[in-house]
Amino acid sequence: MVILLGASGYVGQAYARYLSAENIAFAGVSRRDVDYGRVDVLADFLGAARAEFVINAAGYTGKPNVDACEAHRAECLRGNAVLPGVVREACARVRVPWGHVSSGCIFSGTRPDGSGFRETDAPNFSFRKNLCSFYSGAKALGEEVLGYGEAVDATVDGAEAGGGARWVFREGEPEGFIWRLRIPFENVESPRNYLAKLMCYKLLLDAENSLSQLHEFVRATVECWRRRAPFGIYNVTNPGRVTTREVVDLIVRSGVCPKEYVFFKDEAEFMHLAAKTPRSNCVLDTSKLRHAGIAMTEVHDALAQALRHWVRA
Amino acid sequence: MVILLGASGYVGQAYARYLSAENIAFAGVSRRDVDYGRVDVLADFLGAARAEFVINAAGYTGKPNVDACEAHRAECLRGNAVLPGVVREACARVRVPWGHVSSGCIFSGTRPDGSGFRETDAPNFSFRKNLCSFYSGAKALGEEVLGYGEAVDATVDGAEAGGGARWVFREGEPEGFIWRLRIPFENVESPRNYLAKLMCYKLLLDAENSLSQLHEFVRATVECWRRRAPFGIYNVTNPGRVTTREVVDLIVRSGVCPKEYVFFKDEAEFMHLAAKTPRSNCVLDTSKLRHAGIAMTEVHDALAQALRHWVRA
Repeated sequence: MVILLGASGYVGQAYARYLSAENIAFAGVSRRDVDYGRVDVLADFLGAARAEFVINAAGYTGKPNVDACEAHRAECLRGNAVLPGVVREACARVRVPWGHVSSGCIFSGTRPDGSGFRETDAPNFSFRKNLCSFYSGAKALGEEVLGYGEAVDATVDGAEAGGGARWVFREGEPEGFIWRLRIPFENVESPRNYLAKLMCYKLLLDAENSLSQLHEFVRATVECWRRRAPFGIYNVTNPGRVTTREVVDLIVRSGVCPKEYVFFKDEAEFMHLAAKTPRSNCVLDTSKLRHAGIAMTEVHDALAQALRHWVRA
Repeated sequence: MVILLGASGYVGQAYARYLSAENIAFAGVSRRDVDYGRVDVLADFLGAARAEFVINAAGYTGKPNVDACEAHRAECLRGNAVLPGVVREACARVRVPWGHVSSGCIFSGTRPDGSGFRETDAPNFSFRKNLCSFYSGAKALGEEVLGYGEAVDATVDGAEAGGGARWVFREGEPEGFIWRLRIPFENVESPRNYLAKLMCYKLLLDAENSLSQLHEFVRATVECWRRRAPFGIYNVTNPGRVTTREVVDLIVRSGVCPKEYVFFKDEAEFMHLAAKTPRSNCVLDTSKLRHAGIAMTEVHDALAQALRHWVRA
């Protein structure tokens, strides 16, 4: 039985759909049913439910956008930094592995040589770099709470690859996955879908990013579990990088929402007119996931596919 | 009615003794009685109790010392960064002012000119400076969560000084005190008392620090409330600064625990042999509290007094 925390959220709903479609037995848990912010309550629940794996898709993202986290700092820390630690500790008590939906938003830009950030790189858009939104800071702390420290290569942990292998637990080591999602999009219109956001915003900020097709993200992360991939951090984004202007070109060419898209002059104007807190724009390296045998579609192709099958709300 | 959170802790017990002695009506609340980590629960409780003021002496300090916070990061963040925000929000709902026991451990050293850190200085021993223990990082985040930002002069908030004035609430502004405690000591032997710690440790680290005589700290902070001092941050330490060697000299001269005290060669040896995470050693400026009309004893005098009236456990 897979236990899914945060099942009612945007990412959680995608997990629920995927697990159902794959006939994987799971229970979506809401905070109303189980007060999973408490280690003892969650551990008891996991034991009683005979949990095999826990997916933590719960988090605090801020509504309508990340600016809201600046005004709700305690909730932001509780949901993004404390809860992962609670999940980890409860899972350790009942010896169940976990997967935590983290975020690529703890990085900004690219590595100095222009390549994407790897899982071994320390977050550079975090409290520790004193450059971040409160959201990104909290998400980066969440990864620290999960015990991978700042810039640790967490690929080595003794778990064997290959289907059906048993989990190898090592005392004191993290026993789960940190999966980094980046700007989710999909083919269904929704206020959380990046493509739908771009179609609605009055002004756009041009920036280069890695993105995650939501359903590919979900499939890839569940594959980590099924294949018994080594525990650790994984960047789970579509390979490649894309600029906002390229995404807009794809939207216009698809015919889904043809209009004139207007851009901010630069990031300074964006910060001045539209934002309370800086945004992460970054490129992530995806080779670790690929080396684990898990493929995702090239990002431009994934965007074109989503637009080709666009479903209005 | 004053509501005291964390009444069973070392600092909380000192508040309970002082409030009793002063005949100030108060209720010490433990988490078993009231799940005060939840805004709605705490707000309902404060309303029902007709709270006039809330003292948050709850926090997570790590046992036996701050190194334990490195292993219990989620609890450390929950107790020191999330809870203050919960208290603030619950208090805002029922329009009750609060006082939060923070820590001077979010600073290291002195200002560049050798003077003590003021309330307007940004913490320099924090996640944002990427130099701190997890405890200090969490305490500094707690101050941010309370809405004073990083380096804001929070003295100006419209509340009038002088006994009996009514609180002036301004929408969206923090409505309480951040009181910074530093290395508490007193005349009663206890594992949390700095003097008793020095008498027990095998090896000592020489460093220059501000300290807080625990009962003077408690009295001064309650005075902030009674006098309707302006809301904001206050360094609540005994004026002056003292080195570990000076404290040891006072201990020896007092006759309380005469022995040969041995020191680490330097901080590097201390970190190598005894500590998992760096310690804050710092000097705080105490003029803001004094200007609010609240006096504390000079630190060497306060130490000598505590030793003169030493009570063994």
